Amino acid sequence: MKKILIIGLGLIGGSYARGLTKSGYEVYAIDTNTDTIEYAKEHNIIKDGSNEYDKDFINQFDRIIFALTPHAFTNCIEKYGIFIKDGAIITDVTGVKESVVYEIQDRLKDRVEYIGAHPMAGREVCGIINSDDGIFKGANYIITPTDKNTDEGIAFAREIANALGFRKISILSPKEHDEMIAFLSQLAHCIAVALMTCKDSEHLVDYTGDSFRDLTRIANINENMWTELFLTNKKALIAEIDSFISQMTTLRKFISEDNEEEIKQMMKLSTKRRSYFNNKK
Amino acid sequence: MKKILIIGLGLIGGSYARGLTKSGYEVYAIDTNTDTIEYAKEHNIIKDGSNEYDKDFINQFDRIIFALTPHAFTNCIEKYGIFIKDGAIITDVTGVKESVVYEIQDRLKDRVEYIGAHPMAGREVCGIINSDDGIFKGANYIITPTDKNTDEGIAFAREIANALGFRKISILSPKEHDEMIAFLSQLAHCIAVALMTCKDSEHLVDYTGDSFRDLTRIANINENMWTELFLTNKKALIAEIDSFISQMTTLRKFISEDNEEEIKQMMKLSTKRRSYFNNKK
Repeated sequence: MKKILIIGLGLIGGSYARGLTKSGYEVYAIDTNTDTIEYAKEHNIIKDGSNEYDKDFINQFDRIIFALTPHAFTNCIEKYGIFIKDGAIITDVTGVKESVVYEIQDRLKDRVEYIGAHPMAGREVCGIINSDDGIFKGANYIITPTDKNTDEGIAFAREIANALGFRKISILSPKEHDEMIAFLSQLAHCIAVALMTCKDSEHLVDYTGDSFRDLTRIANINENMWTELFLTNKKALIAEIDSFISQMTTLRKFISEDNEEEIKQMMKLSTKRRSYFNNKK
Repeated sequence: MKKILIIGLGLIGGSYARGLTKSGYEVYAIDTNTDTIEYAKEHNIIKDGSNEYDKDFINQFDRIIFALTPHAFTNCIEKYGIFIKDGAIITDVTGVKESVVYEIQDRLKDRVEYIGAHPMAGREVCGIINSDDGIFKGANYIITPTDKNTDEGIAFAREIANALGFRKISILSPKEHDEMIAFLSQLAHCIAVALMTCKDSEHLVDYTGDSFRDLTRIANINENMWTELFLTNKKALIAEIDSFISQMTTLRKFISEDNEEEIKQMMKLSTKRRSYFNNKK
């Protein structure tokens, strides 16, 4: 039986624990919240866990998954990285990579291999009580190796993705990942937040169609995690915001000029590009 | 048995026809497409129909629903309004109201009563073959009376909404309706189109999470209908686009300045406002 340690049993860590336990792993966890570890044990989500970063506990694992936000992850490695067994392979789930991967790899040197990974899945709720390994089925998983990574490290990340049922595993550089995520995820969250803060919405509920509901689902947002993700990927995100504002401004101009042809051209292009998504998932 | 005529058997007209037939109405239809009428008869969506605007046919109905786009509706009334029986009550489904309601009411004078209505439901596909009266279940329905309307006219619009299973019926003035719809529906479609046209997306499919998919579902857009809706509600829509761009620009500024506190404030407000939507539907 493969033993694995998950550090952080939030929504994603908890969902990983559920899925890996179901796939036959012997899953252990560290979370500083006592209730979380108790809950996970009671519900057979993990085999055992601890509330503390104990050297002897951590040192027994060859494989560790850090399910923390970027800053918590780098802080954790700074404080407790030394407890990790020589030759272990670790991975993570953080939604930004360039600001994380090189720093952690530098810190761990050649003693421990860190392979960056990002499961493209989530929910608008937090914590182990909302965890659900069903969110990974059909979802995408990105691995972000550098020249410090080995085939064995990449294989470990693939193994986790396969065990959890991801639809598609892709390889990107940390920089490519961050640019892609700035557009596909972070910009989408900025748009939802900006839209939802445009005006008071309490009286609007009775007039809402599905389009506004879908568009603003992610406006229900964990402000601590997403502020951190935005600021650790600031350059790429601002470039995408500028590109989007520019397109909005162009569309506004066409509307204000009654330029039917150009509006229709934009809509046709939009429909064509959206169609690539229709056949998958 | 109540007889009713639907003019235009597209997605919405076809869905109305299905729902009203199920609710016990004897539904007739006019659509200039021969195949559409044949399909609707074969599938028992309507009792009978015609491809032509025939005076004797139209003149037998006391109640008519126009399921056309704004321009097609006003053109139709201009050409064939004279065929409508004295004392009849008509309604519609168009997504803009101020540019439609007063013009049609003026044209029909006191001979025929027109009560404006907007079913807040739809799909990203067209035509009778995609029609489905299930789209109205739990959806919102807006009635936009003017001082020309009678209690009987408003009651007719309510009757249709109830027969089709709408969750909530609201009364707004044409102007209030158009401002609300500019924000809740048209701006949402502008955002999806602008986002989807920012960059080529073919290679992005493998990295997409649910948030981007949800945000761009409506980027698959009927360019003729939506261009018409945008341009017939231009003033209100541009005001909403400007308000949204202003919020995006504010958020961009906070991100570029690493202003964590202000970003979190926006996100908290966003979460609070989105929460009003959680309990309904």
